Amino acid sequence: MTRILHRSEIEQVLPDIDIIQWIEEGFIAYSRGKVVVPPVGELIFKEPPGDVHIKYGYIINDEHYVIKIASGFYGPYAEDPSYQSGLMLVFKQRTGELIAILLDEGLLTNVRTAAAGAVTAKCLAPKKVRRIGLVGAGIQARLQLEYIKGIVACRDVLVWGLNQKELDVYKTDMEPLGFCIQTTQNTEDIARNCNFIITATPSQSPLLFAEHIQTGTHITAVGSDTPEKQELDPQILHMADLIVADSISQCLERGEIHHALKAGQIHKDRIVELGEILSDPLKSRTSDNQTTVADLTGVAVQDIQIAKAVCEKFGLIKAV
Amino acid sequence: MTRILHRSEIEQVLPDIDIIQWIEEGFIAYSRGKVVVPPVGELIFKEPPGDVHIKYGYIINDEHYVIKIASGFYGPYAEDPSYQSGLMLVFKQRTGELIAILLDEGLLTNVRTAAAGAVTAKCLAPKKVRRIGLVGAGIQARLQLEYIKGIVACRDVLVWGLNQKELDVYKTDMEPLGFCIQTTQNTEDIARNCNFIITATPSQSPLLFAEHIQTGTHITAVGSDTPEKQELDPQILHMADLIVADSISQCLERGEIHHALKAGQIHKDRIVELGEILSDPLKSRTSDNQTTVADLTGVAVQDIQIAKAVCEKFGLIKAV
Repeated sequence: MTRILHRSEIEQVLPDIDIIQWIEEGFIAYSRGKVVVPPVGELIFKEPPGDVHIKYGYIINDEHYVIKIASGFYGPYAEDPSYQSGLMLVFKQRTGELIAILLDEGLLTNVRTAAAGAVTAKCLAPKKVRRIGLVGAGIQARLQLEYIKGIVACRDVLVWGLNQKELDVYKTDMEPLGFCIQTTQNTEDIARNCNFIITATPSQSPLLFAEHIQTGTHITAVGSDTPEKQELDPQILHMADLIVADSISQCLERGEIHHALKAGQIHKDRIVELGEILSDPLKSRTSDNQTTVADLTGVAVQDIQIAKAVCEKFGLIKAV
Repeated sequence: MTRILHRSEIEQVLPDIDIIQWIEEGFIAYSRGKVVVPPVGELIFKEPPGDVHIKYGYIINDEHYVIKIASGFYGPYAEDPSYQSGLMLVFKQRTGELIAILLDEGLLTNVRTAAAGAVTAKCLAPKKVRRIGLVGAGIQARLQLEYIKGIVACRDVLVWGLNQKELDVYKTDMEPLGFCIQTTQNTEDIARNCNFIITATPSQSPLLFAEHIQTGTHITAVGSDTPEKQELDPQILHMADLIVADSISQCLERGEIHHALKAGQIHKDRIVELGEILSDPLKSRTSDNQTTVADLTGVAVQDIQIAKAVCEKFGLIKAV
């Protein structure tokens, strides 16, 4: 019998799940070759702009497989200027039985993306973060800040957005969480004043440029998850001391690394996988003078882990 | 608000839907380049053997897109020796809103496959079918017979199965529908005695061989939908006067045509698409002396069409 879980039910159990831990374990398993993740399925719409991603796979010797569908539409037809949705399906291996439908409406995709940002911050944030910079003022820019709160001590935040109204709402929403939020409509301000930056927009052209980035900065780019989207000048990757991909195979096809490779700014041998640096700190940031970039395109193993974590909380699958 | 339709509800409306018509229109639109169908997503399991297919896409200028997940497991862990399951998801373009979840448990995949067999029979069955041959005695071998009933006048059927027990059950199930069923455990009997043959097994090696096939026979191969599965000796395709694919691009990668190409038995220029012969009878069978083969690997447009047909019946989408 298939259990259907609605967003409100999922929201209730999320605070009781150590999502960062689940996601970290997922990336480690992935980089050790223990996860089967076929290429992302994709539908790209032009008018209005939108994309649908199907991410799926399973952990070898596990009991389940997971299929996640997530969409983002940005056009005038959407009820919201940025309308995100999605669901996750958890199946039993050996029979294909559908155990659970998580009607999370994109929530779990947002959360697992934020948790990947937190896992990345654990390894790559400079020891002394002077100011956190956020490029984007949407849902993901909120969640990223929320999830790094326990990892990065800094509470000074500079956030960039397209208009003052969304920036004011962001400030109002996020200051109660203990952050001191300043706002800007010029991304150069972020690059010049922050040494820990997260980009979280659906931009299709660079928002941050190499000449403005301070030495020792870490940038986590989470916005670009298609071949088209791009937030970083490829020169930033060229000058970085360390380039980290959530999935090397996926980042060859999409995201910032893909753009930098295409522009001839980096060689693919320079890319290190997130799961590798989680297993081996020597491969990670070793000094505050290093400039580092992490490109998070979103890997099915994150969806597998968060879907399983939720199912476990509801007693639908056995705790490992 | 997402509407969830269970198998029993879907079963109730199916008799009121002209599925063969929907599927025929789907193939015509597909071959005219009016349907976006990305490559099939796939998970292949070895122990026990099983496969999961994700088929998805949309008709250009339509209001919706459809994602279908179907699985077949054949191992000892499955509750049934051949355990099939699946569901279909219907989304709104422009927002990604999930309109309906069809928890059909694989029923609609089975039905749309059978309907494709019927559409194929309309074009390619010899005018005078002496005897219908069925290789396989499972669910699909039942549905194929049911769906061609209105298209092929012949009621004499020879069915092949792995054991007498399943053949006896098949006979008991299908004779009340007006067919006269004989059984065999030797596929050569099918090849020698039938001029309209449907193969519907998960076999991974040929069951029918060129030397036994009678001139003027039509064969519809529906079992092979992965690169591994195979039911026909590639020489059958070599000697055929007409080779029809449900989707040329898909048949280059999977199914009987893929095996015959790999074996060097046919050239890809010889393949004609089902939607083309539906639009242009001159490209189809023109005489009862022709031997013809249709390779049906299952195309997302069939899933799109049947999912939309069901949603329309429930008033979830507008009638076209």
